[in-house]
Amino acid sequence: MDAPRYDPLDPAFAERVRASFAKQGAMHTIGASLAEIAPGRVVIALPWRAELTQQHGFLHAGMVATALDSACGYAASTLMPAEAGVLTIEYKINLLAPAQGDSFRMEGLVVKPGRTISVTEGRAYALHQGREKLIATMGATLMTISGRDHIKH
Amino acid sequence: MDAPRYDPLDPAFAERVRASFAKQGAMHTIGASLAEIAPGRVVIALPWRAELTQQHGFLHAGMVATALDSACGYAASTLMPAEAGVLTIEYKINLLAPAQGDSFRMEGLVVKPGRTISVTEGRAYALHQGREKLIATMGATLMTISGRDHIKH
Amino acid sequence: MDAPRYDPLDPAFAERVRASFAKQGAMHTIGASLAEIAPGRVVIALPWRAELTQQHGFLHAGMVATALDSACGYAASTLMPAEAGVLTIEYKINLLAPAQGDSFRMEGLVVKPGRTISVTEGRAYALHQGREKLIATMGATLMTISGRDHIKH
Amino acid sequence: MDAPRYDPLDPAFAERVRASFAKQGAMHTIGASLAEIAPGRVVIALPWRAELTQQHGFLHAGMVATALDSACGYAASTLMPAEAGVLTIEYKINLLAPAQGDSFRMEGLVVKPGRTISVTEGRAYALHQGREKLIATMGATLMTISGRDHIKH
Repeated sequence: MDAPRYDPLDPAFAERVRASFAKQGAMHTIGASLAEIAPGRVVIALPWRAELTQQHGFLHAGMVATALDSACGYAASTLMPAEAGVLTIEYKINLLAPAQGDSFRMEGLVVKPGRTISVTEGRAYALHQGREKLIATMGATLMTISGRDHIKH
Repeated sequence: MDAPRYDPLDPAFAERVRASFAKQGAMHTIGASLAEIAPGRVVIALPWRAELTQQHGFLHAGMVATALDSACGYAASTLMPAEAGVLTIEYKINLLAPAQGDSFRMEGLVVKPGRTISVTEGRAYALHQGREKLIATMGATLMTISGRDHIKH
Repeated sequence: MDAPRYDPLDPAFAERVRASFAKQGAMHTIGASLAEIAPGRVVIALPWRAELTQQHGFLHAGMVATALDSACGYAASTLMPAEAGVLTIEYKINLLAPAQGDSFRMEGLVVKPGRTISVTEGRAYALHQGREKLIATMGATLMTISGRDHIKH
Repeated sequence: MDAPRYDPLDPAFAERVRASFAKQGAMHTIGASLAEIAPGRVVIALPWRAELTQQHGFLHAGMVATALDSACGYAASTLMPAEAGVLTIEYKINLLAPAQGDSFRMEGLVVKPGRTISVTEGRAYALHQGREKLIATMGATLMTISGRDHIKH
């Protein structure tokens, strides 16, 4: 997916995303890392781990969703004001193929930024035997939160 | 949510669900356990853990979704034939409130069982200071898989 | 579905819903009518019409969705302040069975009301040969709009 | 959105789609027409009509969804065998902006074709004062139906 060109409101958007990501215990637990941060677009990388599998040894769909939801949320966050926080209102995920692979790449892309509501799309790819395969698509709706310190960032 | 009464095709549905659950590395990693297994209804319990948090110390939405998706999938599985496997086609989750609490309860319920397609609903509750609060709702679509050994259960 | 008990902010919620419904050309075109208006719950009735069918003569899923989305939106509207308008942010619909019947009943129910975001659930039933059958479920997210005259109600 | 290249199983896919579309009372009622039929991609055109509006005079979201769902369903249908029928299992729609315009264009695109399950994405555009604006996105899951005459096409 190509990202439309967006002008970020906060020039320090990448540092803000990195700082928030570093505070997430769950991202650390599943071994996710930030691979790319651009205005309206964030990519998260995730290696395969035995601890994250379902009953057939593939990556658990919930882990795919967790990382993909984060990619979408941070993609929306890149276009928000410096002091804003972001909340996921809802997302839908379609699981297209088993998450079979050595590593995974989760792309989040803003489809429509908004003052209150942002709409994003996500795509999860598995890297398996040198080939990249689309394994999941997501549509996520996020809300900008401002003026509440405890939800900041 | 009250479950409609369903007659399971496989009298050993509970053992089948338990055996499959035990094989999921991800469920072990997040500390989830099976709290209830009935025809068309499965409840998963999940304690709060620092390793599963987002940046504000609440349970990460992805972990809520992971456990809730499993509850929905196993709920569908209880009504399937003994030799069948179950695949999540898609789910949508609405996050109603931050996952703040000491422990969490995830209910999956079959709305419509089907030979090929089953539709389920999930509800996630947080137990916080002695009160139970609805924090997420899910709608999940599952597919019955048969005759493919590698996806069995 | 039983509705939780809600206290409406606007005692004239039912009149407000009726006035808004009357202005919708689409509801008139498809022959929908308001069957029930309670705090957090709205039911819309819809007869079968040849003009609203898909290629097998059943009611078109889009018409089911149109009426069900309206039921959800108006259910949310019953709990909003008098001057507020309501916008559908997104909905997901699961089509459980063909919309075969003489008439249809669409229930919208508020799961979580909110100052900005309200989450609702919908159920569509077909009345066919004296029996009522669940044919679709919906999850819809609505936003309260205030202070913009052109979107009012 | 660019469509990936797909090889249709049925060389007469376009005629099949046109014949099915012609049988839909609902498509005729809302004034929709087929603007484009390619392997894995269908575009439906829809003019604004007062009979299809919501309370602010914009096109009703349900009509947007009806036409967009049809575009997605027919997109999936183009890749199915000649004798197959298609059923919508579920879809989710995000409404990004009011459906304000003189006419509308609904694109349905196959993301992943499948023997049983196909996943599609839809985009709705409004043409307003010479400009085209994205007003809705959809994710739809379809099922291939075979060997049941009454659901054929």
